[in-house]
Amino acid sequence: MKNVKVILWGLGAMGGGIGKMLCKKQGVDIVGAIDIGAKLSKSLYDVVPGIERGDREDVIVGTAEEVIRPGAADIVVVCTNSFTRDVYDKLVFVMERGMNVITSAEEMAYPQAQEPELAAKLDEIARRNGVTVLGTGINPGLIMDLLVILWTGACESVDHIVSRRVNSLSPFGPAVMEEQGIGLEVAEFEKRKAAGTMTGHVGFAESIRMITDALGWKLDKFEQDMEPIVTDVDRKSPYGFAAAGHVAGVAMKGWGTVDGQVKIEMDHPQQIEPEQVGIHTGDYVEIQGIPPVNMVNTPEIEGGIGTMAMIMNCIPHVINARPGLKTMVDIPVPHAIMGDMRDMIDEDCKLVK
Amino acid sequence: MKNVKVILWGLGAMGGGIGKMLCKKQGVDIVGAIDIGAKLSKSLYDVVPGIERGDREDVIVGTAEEVIRPGAADIVVVCTNSFTRDVYDKLVFVMERGMNVITSAEEMAYPQAQEPELAAKLDEIARRNGVTVLGTGINPGLIMDLLVILWTGACESVDHIVSRRVNSLSPFGPAVMEEQGIGLEVAEFEKRKAAGTMTGHVGFAESIRMITDALGWKLDKFEQDMEPIVTDVDRKSPYGFAAAGHVAGVAMKGWGTVDGQVKIEMDHPQQIEPEQVGIHTGDYVEIQGIPPVNMVNTPEIEGGIGTMAMIMNCIPHVINARPGLKTMVDIPVPHAIMGDMRDMIDEDCKLVK
Repeated sequence: MKNVKVILWGLGAMGGGIGKMLCKKQGVDIVGAIDIGAKLSKSLYDVVPGIERGDREDVIVGTAEEVIRPGAADIVVVCTNSFTRDVYDKLVFVMERGMNVITSAEEMAYPQAQEPELAAKLDEIARRNGVTVLGTGINPGLIMDLLVILWTGACESVDHIVSRRVNSLSPFGPAVMEEQGIGLEVAEFEKRKAAGTMTGHVGFAESIRMITDALGWKLDKFEQDMEPIVTDVDRKSPYGFAAAGHVAGVAMKGWGTVDGQVKIEMDHPQQIEPEQVGIHTGDYVEIQGIPPVNMVNTPEIEGGIGTMAMIMNCIPHVINARPGLKTMVDIPVPHAIMGDMRDMIDEDCKLVK
Repeated sequence: MKNVKVILWGLGAMGGGIGKMLCKKQGVDIVGAIDIGAKLSKSLYDVVPGIERGDREDVIVGTAEEVIRPGAADIVVVCTNSFTRDVYDKLVFVMERGMNVITSAEEMAYPQAQEPELAAKLDEIARRNGVTVLGTGINPGLIMDLLVILWTGACESVDHIVSRRVNSLSPFGPAVMEEQGIGLEVAEFEKRKAAGTMTGHVGFAESIRMITDALGWKLDKFEQDMEPIVTDVDRKSPYGFAAAGHVAGVAMKGWGTVDGQVKIEMDHPQQIEPEQVGIHTGDYVEIQGIPPVNMVNTPEIEGGIGTMAMIMNCIPHVINARPGLKTMVDIPVPHAIMGDMRDMIDEDCKLVK
């Protein structure tokens, strides 16, 4: 079997990071790369910091029209957007040229939640072209949805779920510092929040619907809110700074109501340097059910590495899947790839034979 | 769609317990029950303690020949044995009559590990008959394999895995007390161990192979050992008693060697009344990798309820799966069923239309 052929669309921190990871794996080749502006016409191996070319063939960054051509690859990794609406045209462009596609767009982890019409169209286009589309990442994609769902597999019944992710934003770069309002005055945070321009975490709507749909609960109402995490002390991370009295992060909360009761609670405080103020990071699953579940992973899985790994590790599952829009509850569990990626591919499903 | 139709083969603690759980769910009917001896010709609802019939039709316990007939059910739940060799004929009997089958037999969680020839035959017979066969449970099936595998999905690479399950045997009945040597003198334990008649936990070989095969590691060597857990104080559980100086449980350990290094360690002390001596039960996953994982669930998921729930919750996945022998890494993640079970069934895969 030929190596698994991958095209990277988007060479930012996420797409570039996946490229770095892929270069360390066996049985997989990066055969194309797409970006815009100054990266065009340069070598992938010059554009992505720290990527190790080894004796691999060079890859020149091109436009989508140049790179996405029928038969060019088994799968395209799209890391360019957070919202389904924004990434939709790219996903369609890939699928109409006969390739599978996986994306880091948070809303695409469960587009049925907030974009049911686009989700239906994506499913239809995928089936028509005999390919698969999946969105995933560490969260949404694993920690606050798939992991919760897996734990309920040990339960006869479930009454109430709390998913908590207490994480550090310190490893992230300037874009995330800006999105999460790090260093802002509280009044500015509130102004942005009121204007709807504070992004915070994208994914609660998707995670909650993934859980309720999996368990067979009908979600009556989804709500979320965000509050500034105001620091008592100066906090400094590689790319962020919050002076005492300013915003060091965003505390996101979400609620899913089923049968008139809040059955799912999401609690996700994200901040720089939580350790400085004695906050222990971690991932938590608390299920009231038969039997109960009381899980913690400390420290939390780091979001950047975790998302890149999840996307890389799901590549074989997407290639193997039956055509259509898939979510993490439709495919087998993701896992690390320590051998040759080709050993995980169903020969019948390989596109580039 | 008609209700999901289930036959129970084996009405002991496990099969009977699954029957009790199924009677609380919507969209599923128990349409047949098989056992031997004094249970034959009695009502299922008289034979299984605590099962609630409600307004369901009666089910009379019969022989396999009477109950397993083509078109009788969508799936048969076989809870009669621990070893593949012992349950093999029953699984074949079901599949040759055109029905899917799920079993609690521990070795069947990954029969490729110790019974590769039987596993190949089961796969062939399943495909030939267009049905699916799966073994699962809490362990093997979830805690020391699938859960570990899922966590590696967040990892770029994995160096070393420890899976630890510290559990209480107190909820279990006389059969488990006997199997695990509860109350024995140490010399008697050692004699049985030397004679190969101390069962201990069945599943390390299966869990380790499931992990190595999933990750793409080649398992060079599998080893396991057991030691008596000798109590300092008298310990009494509902069905067990260990006097001070006697055996209160079995400490099982297992090791998987890959590339000359022990990459997977299994640590599974099982005992009655661990709380009496200050031992906190729990399920642990410790992964050295990028990133590391350090997970604990306390207390542990109780083995009996957990296994029954896992089997019930996997029924839709087995019905929906493509024909063949499947393991937990082949199907979507298990989850609790809080709605109508029919909503989780692919119409094309339903056997009893």
